[in-house]
Amino acid sequence: MDQVELTLEAARDLSRRCLRANGCDAANADAITQVMIVAERDGCASHGLFRLPGYVSALRDGRANGRADPAVERIAAGVIRVDGDLGYAPLALERARRPLIDAARENGIGAMSLVRTFHLAALWPEVEALAEQGLVALAMTSSRSLVAPAGGTNALFGTNPMAFGWPRADAPPMVFDQAVSVMARGEVQIAARDGRPLPEGAALDAGGHPTTDAQAAVDGVLLPFGGHKGSSIGLMVELLAAGLLGESFAFQTSEEFADDGGPGRGGELIIAMDPARFGDAEGWQSHAETFFARFDREDGVRLPGARRHANRKRIIDHGFAIPAALHAEVLTLSEGPATG
Amino acid sequence: MDQVELTLEAARDLSRRCLRANGCDAANADAITQVMIVAERDGCASHGLFRLPGYVSALRDGRANGRADPAVERIAAGVIRVDGDLGYAPLALERARRPLIDAARENGIGAMSLVRTFHLAALWPEVEALAEQGLVALAMTSSRSLVAPAGGTNALFGTNPMAFGWPRADAPPMVFDQAVSVMARGEVQIAARDGRPLPEGAALDAGGHPTTDAQAAVDGVLLPFGGHKGSSIGLMVELLAAGLLGESFAFQTSEEFADDGGPGRGGELIIAMDPARFGDAEGWQSHAETFFARFDREDGVRLPGARRHANRKRIIDHGFAIPAALHAEVLTLSEGPATG
Repeated sequence: MDQVELTLEAARDLSRRCLRANGCDAANADAITQVMIVAERDGCASHGLFRLPGYVSALRDGRANGRADPAVERIAAGVIRVDGDLGYAPLALERARRPLIDAARENGIGAMSLVRTFHLAALWPEVEALAEQGLVALAMTSSRSLVAPAGGTNALFGTNPMAFGWPRADAPPMVFDQAVSVMARGEVQIAARDGRPLPEGAALDAGGHPTTDAQAAVDGVLLPFGGHKGSSIGLMVELLAAGLLGESFAFQTSEEFADDGGPGRGGELIIAMDPARFGDAEGWQSHAETFFARFDREDGVRLPGARRHANRKRIIDHGFAIPAALHAEVLTLSEGPATG
Repeated sequence: MDQVELTLEAARDLSRRCLRANGCDAANADAITQVMIVAERDGCASHGLFRLPGYVSALRDGRANGRADPAVERIAAGVIRVDGDLGYAPLALERARRPLIDAARENGIGAMSLVRTFHLAALWPEVEALAEQGLVALAMTSSRSLVAPAGGTNALFGTNPMAFGWPRADAPPMVFDQAVSVMARGEVQIAARDGRPLPEGAALDAGGHPTTDAQAAVDGVLLPFGGHKGSSIGLMVELLAAGLLGESFAFQTSEEFADDGGPGRGGELIIAMDPARFGDAEGWQSHAETFFARFDREDGVRLPGARRHANRKRIIDHGFAIPAALHAEVLTLSEGPATG
């Protein structure tokens, strides 16, 4: 596959120009670009410029508001409510971050409830940003129905990612971000395109039977990791990211928005805790480091995020590559929607 | 196996007498008894009177303080810190419940940090009690090292249960409570006793090789559900229930307390949220019920807790049975420690 080499700065310019040409104002273009650049910086191509065509499609068809002006309100001492103004999540998250940090520091624990937004980004950049400020953070978002509950054959849950971040003493925050499905939907689509089989237990075909055929899985449903225990996690994410916030459950998003590769509307919950306010202000960080030290003792055991941190050093210095076809598509999209 | 039939009231008397005879004051005996009776009421024998000998053993050897006087302090607007006074968790949880509810209602979200305690109970009674008061609750506790992280062969994590509760409109709260291991350790021990094999993927033998032999698993380590994703959940529970609170990680509990079937010291974190303070005070409950209604549409798909609620109706009316050997053991224990 032909590749085009880019520096992070070149990628940033490319993304910004493309979003501006398709109806984003500067604030939204910059915020959306930032989450894609952070993903590329850490070697997560699936949340990098690969997402740009998806962002553009929902700008062009009027679903997502490129000039969204998210409104942040502290509706309780510990709750920051953000109305996303039907734009993409990054600008809303950026504006909510400082009030959420303040609420967590003042009360020990705080929550952010983001509604009326479209989410196409990974969750980990957000919890990482909070952990870099010294907070422990847990984030969840729902999406459209793609995952069957344990025992079922019909999609009900979204892929419902949950991300967690922990501030470390002399290292980047420990962060994980994982969907409730065994495989991300994008991974299944790529396997189908390349004719590769799936592992057992990842999907059912349209008839509700277990399958390792990736195309059959695309036409069927994904399965949660870990059977009924992973299914419970998916259920919890629906209730917290949709039920608690008054936003759409995955099944409602699926009913409202065609599954055309573009985003559906949804909510996001972040819980942030200040470890200095839990009773061990002096000791918590070194205490946790004694635990992390256990992960270096055995081959094959590593902390989540280790690969990202290794990528980061390399990509900041040397840049990265994207498929030439994606690069060409972005250049075409950057010409803006056809007029007439 | 010979069984002895009991009413819930008879079981309550039996437990209370036994705990009092072994050094508990009335407040601790009543609180500990209550969590065992709630478990028996819902048909969860593994957290019912089955635990009583474990409670007694750590009272007799002086590990656990039967006259613990847990101290509750609101150390931040949203954080309730409870010093368990080295007693069992139930009385501490009982005393912390009202302050935690108040903190969550006032701020929208609150947390309870329980330290210096011994935990032998299930977590679900606690989140259920909070959900019965209209709060959404998430609880976690660590234990001794029994579970290998994904990719590893040595125990590092505890079985690290996580419980979640959601208040429902015209039904008992939706509650789940699940260990991070594929199987609970007690289940593996019972399979070993009965000579039954384990499912694949539940354990490694002492040499670090996958095994379905239950005795080999008892001598080896348990595995997390869902591979590296379940392992991440186990990691998060360690950090939240031990790291954040300044309590022992599972590996530290294992180093300090012999694995003799009795409890090890640990911490517990509860996060409680008031759904009326998240921006959809009028709508959240009926909104969530539209989601729960989806679970009745398909055979094989059911909400967590459905079996417990069915048991509850039956057992309140008709009582339950325990093995005659356990009943005899409890009667003997009720005579108190041998003197001399």
